[in-house]
Amino acid sequence: MPLPLPLPSPVSSLLWRSLRVYQVYGANTDVGKTIFSTLLCKAATRFWDNEQTAFLKPVSTGPLDEADDRHVQRFAPEVANKTLFQYDLAVSPHSAALASKRLIPPDESLLDEISKFASRRASLSRGWLFIETAGGVHSPGPSGSTQAELYMPLRLPVVLIGDAKLGGISQTISAFESLKIRGYDVEAVLLFREDKYQNHLYLTDYFRDQQGIPVKTVPEPPARGESISRDADSMLWYYETTSSSPTAQSILSYLAAQHSKRIDRLDSMRASAHKTIWYPFTQQKQLSASNITVIDSAQGDHFQTLTSSAPPSAPLLQPTFDASASWWTQGLGHGSPSLALAAAYAAGRYGHVMFAEAIHEPALALAENLLAGMANPRLTRVFYSDNGSTGAEVAVKMALRAARVRYGWGAEEEVGVLGLRGSYHGDTIGAMDCSEPGVFNEKVEWYEGRGFWFEYPTVMCREGRWVVEIPREMRSTASYGGHKAVFASLGDVFGVKDRENRGEGALYEQYIVDTLERLHREGRRFGALILEPVILGAGGMLLVDPLFQRVLVNVVRRSSHLFGQGEHRGAKEMGDSTTHWAGLPVVFDEVFTGIYRLGRFSAASFLHVDADISVHAKLLTGGLVPLCATLASESVFDAFGSDDKSDALLHGHSYTAHAVGCQVALESLRQMKEMDAHEEWAWAKTSYQRNEVPSKPSLGMSPESLIWSVWGPDFVNWVSQQTASSVGGAWALGTVLAIHMETKDGSAGYKSGAAKDIQASLARGAVVVEGIEGDGAGWNVHSRVLGNVLYVMAGHKTKEKSVRQLESILRRVLLEKKHQ
Amino acid sequence: MPLPLPLPSPVSSLLWRSLRVYQVYGANTDVGKTIFSTLLCKAATRFWDNEQTAFLKPVSTGPLDEADDRHVQRFAPEVANKTLFQYDLAVSPHSAALASKRLIPPDESLLDEISKFASRRASLSRGWLFIETAGGVHSPGPSGSTQAELYMPLRLPVVLIGDAKLGGISQTISAFESLKIRGYDVEAVLLFREDKYQNHLYLTDYFRDQQGIPVKTVPEPPARGESISRDADSMLWYYETTSSSPTAQSILSYLAAQHSKRIDRLDSMRASAHKTIWYPFTQQKQLSASNITVIDSAQGDHFQTLTSSAPPSAPLLQPTFDASASWWTQGLGHGSPSLALAAAYAAGRYGHVMFAEAIHEPALALAENLLAGMANPRLTRVFYSDNGSTGAEVAVKMALRAARVRYGWGAEEEVGVLGLRGSYHGDTIGAMDCSEPGVFNEKVEWYEGRGFWFEYPTVMCREGRWVVEIPREMRSTASYGGHKAVFASLGDVFGVKDRENRGEGALYEQYIVDTLERLHREGRRFGALILEPVILGAGGMLLVDPLFQRVLVNVVRRSSHLFGQGEHRGAKEMGDSTTHWAGLPVVFDEVFTGIYRLGRFSAASFLHVDADISVHAKLLTGGLVPLCATLASESVFDAFGSDDKSDALLHGHSYTAHAVGCQVALESLRQMKEMDAHEEWAWAKTSYQRNEVPSKPSLGMSPESLIWSVWGPDFVNWVSQQTASSVGGAWALGTVLAIHMETKDGSAGYKSGAAKDIQASLARGAVVVEGIEGDGAGWNVHSRVLGNVLYVMAGHKTKEKSVRQLESILRRVLLEKKHQ
Repeated sequence: MPLPLPLPSPVSSLLWRSLRVYQVYGANTDVGKTIFSTLLCKAATRFWDNEQTAFLKPVSTGPLDEADDRHVQRFAPEVANKTLFQYDLAVSPHSAALASKRLIPPDESLLDEISKFASRRASLSRGWLFIETAGGVHSPGPSGSTQAELYMPLRLPVVLIGDAKLGGISQTISAFESLKIRGYDVEAVLLFREDKYQNHLYLTDYFRDQQGIPVKTVPEPPARGESISRDADSMLWYYETTSSSPTAQSILSYLAAQHSKRIDRLDSMRASAHKTIWYPFTQQKQLSASNITVIDSAQGDHFQTLTSSAPPSAPLLQPTFDASASWWTQGLGHGSPSLALAAAYAAGRYGHVMFAEAIHEPALALAENLLAGMANPRLTRVFYSDNGSTGAEVAVKMALRAARVRYGWGAEEEVGVLGLRGSYHGDTIGAMDCSEPGVFNEKVEWYEGRGFWFEYPTVMCREGRWVVEIPREMRSTASYGGHKAVFASLGDVFGVKDRENRGEGALYEQYIVDTLERLHREGRRFGALILEPVILGAGGMLLVDPLFQRVLVNVVRRSSHLFGQGEHRGAKEMGDSTTHWAGLPVVFDEVFTGIYRLGRFSAASFLHVDADISVHAKLLTGGLVPLCATLASESVFDAFGSDDKSDALLHGHSYTAHAVGCQVALESLRQMKEMDAHEEWAWAKTSYQRNEVPSKPSLGMSPESLIWSVWGPDFVNWVSQQTASSVGGAWALGTVLAIHMETKDGSAGYKSGAAKDIQASLARGAVVVEGIEGDGAGWNVHSRVLGNVLYVMAGHKTKEKSVRQLESILRRVLLEKKHQ
Repeated sequence: MPLPLPLPSPVSSLLWRSLRVYQVYGANTDVGKTIFSTLLCKAATRFWDNEQTAFLKPVSTGPLDEADDRHVQRFAPEVANKTLFQYDLAVSPHSAALASKRLIPPDESLLDEISKFASRRASLSRGWLFIETAGGVHSPGPSGSTQAELYMPLRLPVVLIGDAKLGGISQTISAFESLKIRGYDVEAVLLFREDKYQNHLYLTDYFRDQQGIPVKTVPEPPARGESISRDADSMLWYYETTSSSPTAQSILSYLAAQHSKRIDRLDSMRASAHKTIWYPFTQQKQLSASNITVIDSAQGDHFQTLTSSAPPSAPLLQPTFDASASWWTQGLGHGSPSLALAAAYAAGRYGHVMFAEAIHEPALALAENLLAGMANPRLTRVFYSDNGSTGAEVAVKMALRAARVRYGWGAEEEVGVLGLRGSYHGDTIGAMDCSEPGVFNEKVEWYEGRGFWFEYPTVMCREGRWVVEIPREMRSTASYGGHKAVFASLGDVFGVKDRENRGEGALYEQYIVDTLERLHREGRRFGALILEPVILGAGGMLLVDPLFQRVLVNVVRRSSHLFGQGEHRGAKEMGDSTTHWAGLPVVFDEVFTGIYRLGRFSAASFLHVDADISVHAKLLTGGLVPLCATLASESVFDAFGSDDKSDALLHGHSYTAHAVGCQVALESLRQMKEMDAHEEWAWAKTSYQRNEVPSKPSLGMSPESLIWSVWGPDFVNWVSQQTASSVGGAWALGTVLAIHMETKDGSAGYKSGAAKDIQASLARGAVVVEGIEGDGAGWNVHSRVLGNVLYVMAGHKTKEKSVRQLESILRRVLLEKKHQ
């Protein structure tokens, strides 16, 4: 099989025990960055004379003889000194690079060169490295990305050179804030002591009070005279005095202490967490401190995690691919500056403001946006809560009340939900009660499954064929080409209307009707149908035959006689069948499957049915903060209207519709919709269009109906054939890939550990991919398993090459498993 | 009674239909702010020639003949022109003001002057007003506050003048970000078209792509020559051509359109919200669109809400005091830049990273901080969830399991909680089940009260006396000076150890023991005692006798024989009684009462007992985003340890321990603790020290034991005597004041509307306070009622004068009520 080309490893944050690396940023151009860098270098060599000091200028612009490295070379010849990219024109690097007509280094090459240089220094000896940026914090680098953004993944502690000139207070604070909102730690602010404006006085108080950051000053350098040699002499004298001053010594001591403090803290975090944190969903008796992942920061697809390396010259941090998308929440990548800015904007504009009987712009705009995005004519109302679990409780409270009011049931009557076996809606008791007993809830006090849960057919690629497997319960009812149906592609499975027209739904319908009639005879009462459309997430990453879910909804909607016992008031009140609920309110829990997780705004669109209530969380905020929106129809809403306040939906959290969450969600939806409109996933769609069977020419296929995934069809096909590696089957949809391992006893429950060894291989990283160069270092993958299922999830900004690299790693891991 | 001196009204955001006000900020000093302001003024007069244009320079520095207003006056004589504060020295306003030896205007005076000027313009005619700031966005104003912060409450839309010089890209983006994180809307970026650096090209793309903000350029002004008159001529010509250019016209048209758009949106929000939002805890059939509060922004204690005024010259926004502290969440005030920056930092550093088996700095530091702050030797573990309700569910899951494991109960056995009548722990089903049936839950499907709830004595100031009222159930058991006990001060009521020593707890103990023995005989089984320490919040703002809660905890702790039926394994396993739970795990729900709401880090300290499990939310994040921490003891934690994963606490939300929430909580706790350490509430404490009875000399009183509130003792005393105004009693503790109104039928339930008319008076605002000047305009108060209780809450940064003003208003409202 073809293997991808060698790729640069993802960027690693730079941290070594042996090397103190500081990045020197300027509050503006011409604030003395190079003078301070020279001074820091000289002081480091002076006070740490048994160590080595280096200076790195990644990008320099301006005539060579005026270049910053030349200055350092001249006045601190004792210091190792390097410039990576030099452009002659004295303008911003992006303009200078363009004017140079030379190849413009992409950001990742620039970071790679810096990493290499720093690594070499770290392995050489103990010491210091000062990396000087160009211009101000947001001056664009060669590629055009601003430096504050392009250097983010390195997460170097910063020495910010403040601006001593008129206006410099403002420039210094703003530069600081731009760094801060990108997750930088500014360790110290240095600036010239200037007597007219005395910016240092103001800034000293400001940074101490607001941020606990020390501000230190040195005298201004001598003014340039007319004699070059005399200028040089006075600069030499300036450096001699300032670099040997107690101030210089105290700055360096402080920076050295901060470096030690950061490492000491990282070293101790596992043990502290192990004794302080009560982890969610974790049997802590089985968790040793050493297995805790210490996350120093995260950018894009990667965590920066603490390594367990001991030697002083070994890197302490490594990039680790976040393949669970941090419990399915991530879409726009970690550390997104645009989301950070959106959060800060809402925080600055509102903080949080109470929501009962009040309205603010982000909450209203988000509600309008969600209703428009769903394109579901039933949905008119948005109720906010804090997470998927609370949102599911809200949904169920809505549905049960609507059913009770319409069917005239008393408050004392026991009413359950209809759902699918193994479905999961959250961890609060009310959400748990919507699920059948299982490993997630059976030991939880007060849990009480309230409902009936249907069997259902599942879909999987097995040995290269897309198979719909019919559970025994249905097989006994009718025949459907045996116990399974085989399709040429996943797209064909999702051709639900075609399949319905071909009569493939009859078997399902029969089973559902039979079951509902039996439940009716038994006197069971139900107030909602609640489904995770298309995929049961926590229940084991099961892809449910979409035709089954569609038929289930349709049967429930026309079966009010089976719910309301004939005497209900429903039929007359139902109104327009395209907007009013019928039978039972249909709740779609799209917490996992919605908002582009499966490549579409709403997962309901795969079924071509509209829910009466729809729950959205996780990706809703692009992966930043908790927020949930439960959308409902007016006919559900109306059930709560009365002249009695206590008939209202008495649910509401203090931070309901918090402005930060709503604003971030708005920004996230904006970006997602834009990516969709700009066909940013065309690279992934293309291979699925090709993959479609000839009977459906790809050119004629409307993009809305295309079934696609970032995981290539050939790859999924290949995985599904690795039966020798214990693969039972696989599927991929949108950003999700699920590999179902077969356990020897055929069981596939949550407690199974069958996928654990693959997870361990991925975590070990440094996978050598056969036939390609490079050692794959940095391709550690943090994944989660659900019993026998290993799943891997990409973000919506994950690049094609990263997905391909992950595919290579997975191939390799599966092949290794075969040889074991 | 003495009335406070007249106070300036709180600041109003500036918005009129008749007047388009824009604030001109510069990305740096010397970027052409005044030239652009002149140009905008000239273009406005040219293209809107039937309207009037004005220019305002709030603070100007530098020699008068070079002042910006002189420039505008010279080149745009057709424009009304004013400078509020002029300082001769050409340095930053804070230095210039200091050097001037004149009185330095406080920020609120500055804002007040601006408001007055703008109001006059708005009433004059339709038109434009451009307000030019000094220096860069963070250049300090006269008081030393940076302009970007001091002008926040005005929330003026911004025209940002970009920097066309070398380094100007960085300066412009950073300045923009500093404005953005303070909630400003930057409507346009203007800068000079400069050919060497071409910053405008980069910035045009940047702001369009990132923020959808237009960037417009004009040519650079003519260079200054040697002849002043020729310079003036060329400037005149420059203004003539640029201000009449299509660019100028398009900028002004855009700004006019944005102004209309903002107002149109505000005008339509009530109706849109009314038809789109499903409100929490709201009977929407009783809610008309006109009663929805439209919140444009919020700063400090105030919302900026939409008025219902119609005339074009009437202000559209008014400050409204947030007296429910936005459902009890606010502490550091709305729109806190330090919290916004903390949120953005965490967002930039991590986004959100998955927490199971992982650790990140803010989550660990917050856990350590909370454990240290609680100073409760039992608590060792922190479990994060998303809000008080989920945190309460987690607490109950913890406690029930611990009890079940120790007492050896089977999974099938029904186990309830012990609590107090009318207590409230949240809206999810599991949290609801911890409360007895009542108006909050009785109609909620699936709700099922699981437990027993004790009666309890309450504390209230009635007609000037602090009364502990003993419920009938206890009176029948023993005698305690009749059905109530009277104390000289609230401090005496809280002297629980003294009272215990005096035998005042005996009555309570008897009632509790008798009750527990009866429940034991009835075969009832309990797995937790769950209490809101000191105050039952949602249950009606009831102050419970702290001695009762203390006795209850102590009796439960020594009564394992009444819970474990004798055969339990407890006694041997219990271990150290200061750290291991005994009897039942004791859960304190401090969601409302903790984190300084009552003036102390933990409300448990009032009872002098330590909980085994403690729940914290609301103020935890200083009022910004949802986050909850459930703290637990090791002896509770250990109950979940086994070799079976499914014995773990299988609870966990996707955003568990989200970095933004943890970082904000850390910053909030830091500030709160600092305020506490610096005795920033000394102004409030003083009056309570004076108020203590002579038997407890205030000088000898340790600050920890002081019982105090921001609401003065004399005020509370006065309120409690307003029986003619239907006041039944009142209490104040920490930041909370509760006024219990007496209904005619003596009922005091949630459904009662007895406090509604006071709420309505407060909301109407513009209360004329007798005997003092000013019309009190702007003192609209947004409050919430709980049945017959009106409560008012201050934030932790609310100033004394604001509290006193609120006291005056409340006095007035109560007096008015008497006269009705």
